[in-house]
Amino acid sequence: MTHNTPSGEDSLIARYFKPLATDPGAFGLRDDAAIIKADGHDLVVNTDAIVEGVHYLADDPPDTIARKALRVNLSDLAAKGAEPAGFVLTLALRTADDSWLSAFAQGLGEDAQAFGCPLLGGDTVSTPGPVMISITAWGRVPVARMVHRFGARPGDRVMVTGTIGDASLGLAVLQGKPAAAALAADPAAREMLISRYHLPQPRNALAVAVRDFATASMDVSDGLAGDLAKLCAASGVTADIELAKIPTSPAATTLLACGAADIEAIISGGDDFEILCTVPESRRDAFAGEARRAGVAVTEIGVIVAGEGPARFRDAQGRSITLKRLSFSHF
Amino acid sequence: MTHNTPSGEDSLIARYFKPLATDPGAFGLRDDAAIIKADGHDLVVNTDAIVEGVHYLADDPPDTIARKALRVNLSDLAAKGAEPAGFVLTLALRTADDSWLSAFAQGLGEDAQAFGCPLLGGDTVSTPGPVMISITAWGRVPVARMVHRFGARPGDRVMVTGTIGDASLGLAVLQGKPAAAALAADPAAREMLISRYHLPQPRNALAVAVRDFATASMDVSDGLAGDLAKLCAASGVTADIELAKIPTSPAATTLLACGAADIEAIISGGDDFEILCTVPESRRDAFAGEARRAGVAVTEIGVIVAGEGPARFRDAQGRSITLKRLSFSHF
Repeated sequence: MTHNTPSGEDSLIARYFKPLATDPGAFGLRDDAAIIKADGHDLVVNTDAIVEGVHYLADDPPDTIARKALRVNLSDLAAKGAEPAGFVLTLALRTADDSWLSAFAQGLGEDAQAFGCPLLGGDTVSTPGPVMISITAWGRVPVARMVHRFGARPGDRVMVTGTIGDASLGLAVLQGKPAAAALAADPAAREMLISRYHLPQPRNALAVAVRDFATASMDVSDGLAGDLAKLCAASGVTADIELAKIPTSPAATTLLACGAADIEAIISGGDDFEILCTVPESRRDAFAGEARRAGVAVTEIGVIVAGEGPARFRDAQGRSITLKRLSFSHF
Repeated sequence: MTHNTPSGEDSLIARYFKPLATDPGAFGLRDDAAIIKADGHDLVVNTDAIVEGVHYLADDPPDTIARKALRVNLSDLAAKGAEPAGFVLTLALRTADDSWLSAFAQGLGEDAQAFGCPLLGGDTVSTPGPVMISITAWGRVPVARMVHRFGARPGDRVMVTGTIGDASLGLAVLQGKPAAAALAADPAAREMLISRYHLPQPRNALAVAVRDFATASMDVSDGLAGDLAKLCAASGVTADIELAKIPTSPAATTLLACGAADIEAIISGGDDFEILCTVPESRRDAFAGEARRAGVAVTEIGVIVAGEGPARFRDAQGRSITLKRLSFSHF
């Protein structure tokens, strides 16, 4: 490195990430900090990191790794009723590999634009260990309108977006578990499950409806059962859930029917990135109408009841099943 | 893990980090996101990560690792003229070690309180690799008053806080390099240098003066020469610096005098976390007065001149020295 060329780190940032930093508050990544303008809104802030070999596989496509890193944060903002406003990126890399970085930056830039969430700054560091991508993202809500984990009341309906279990089944397919063999003759179903693992579909289109209708809300990232237990604990309530009502994709339904997947794995598997929220019964139909207009499927899976402890999951005979684990935990 | 106990991750957060999250916007870390209230200010956001074995040594005391992770961000806020408002933490750990985490959380909490920068949220993940701590911090400035890297004009005086080179010499001492032997008879000097490596002293007390007087500013984190080159490039100017004016501690001065350190290592070494800023000549004395009142030493080391390229560093004879490298780079 001579003193007439920028450092490798600076040139890496200029090459791959400056083109993404089009928001005026980012100052083209030429400064040490960025500006978030608030103007009478509350800014909702969230941070989530993904680690190679833990949250994604080392040979996953780099553009989907970037999108996943951003989308897991966008999913939290959606569940909080917030509209994306920007993010900063910390990237810990072993080496600066041109083709990997180029695809990573392209995927990140496309998603930043698609979700209206501009890159505002970041830090790039070297690590001898696994690649780690940490993103902190902000969203705007009107003052005091963030939707919390707490706030669910007895009688509220428990609603969930999209389908549950696909991402964890996609990982099972990638790992050659029984689900892979069971779908040997259905490559389209395999691909759908894998793409749900690689690429969360955060429900940002539903954010305003969540803000307007939900009494409590969070995203399902560590497993439906465990995340619902957190929502119930924060709200001081519990819930009755009907297993048969939990929305599953045709591929997941097939795997459940043939025994290559079980419902417990479906509701305790991670990476769904759907919204789990509670809505007063009187407002359920209006919420469902808003969700239809937003193009997001929502399903009622049960009801909040007085009490404490994790939700009860009842089978078709009304019997409560016992879960060995509720969700993924890092420790 | 049974379904009646919280996950290891949740209990880790509740045990170590919930006591730190006293700001109302943090909701006791019981939610998925936090609120930053802005109220007509601009929020300055900065993110910086530190990696075990790269930015700190594996056996460094955990409380100083935590403080360093926060302080490298506080230093950026100070240089931008911003007053700390809060931070989020991403912690990637191999294992959840109680004594390490307990000391880490205590150091973090003490610094958060001392610098008025509350913990607002975070994410804790497992990694098979080195520990990594990524912090995103915000500060407040009046609207459009963040001090940029750009803005330095010919004739402006180049000012730096504190002393330069101590942290990189402290690392050299820890690594048993010649500096260690040269200070064998002076344990107090060795300890001072090591403590400057372990524990940056961010100049947040100077933030308002920087905002009121500086035309451009950044913190010195990768090496004075390289960081000044960045400030000059962003401002479209260059600078003439007198090596003899660069402030060094008594310990560094001793090492320079006996040949156990050289000036090039001093000005290209990293981890200083001092403020480098430019001030119009007409306002230099007023700035120095404010710095005295804030209890922060500032030294004039040179002048901004028209032109381009990295600053010239001149020795006592007025000769410009050639640097082999300007600063630390990760890649």
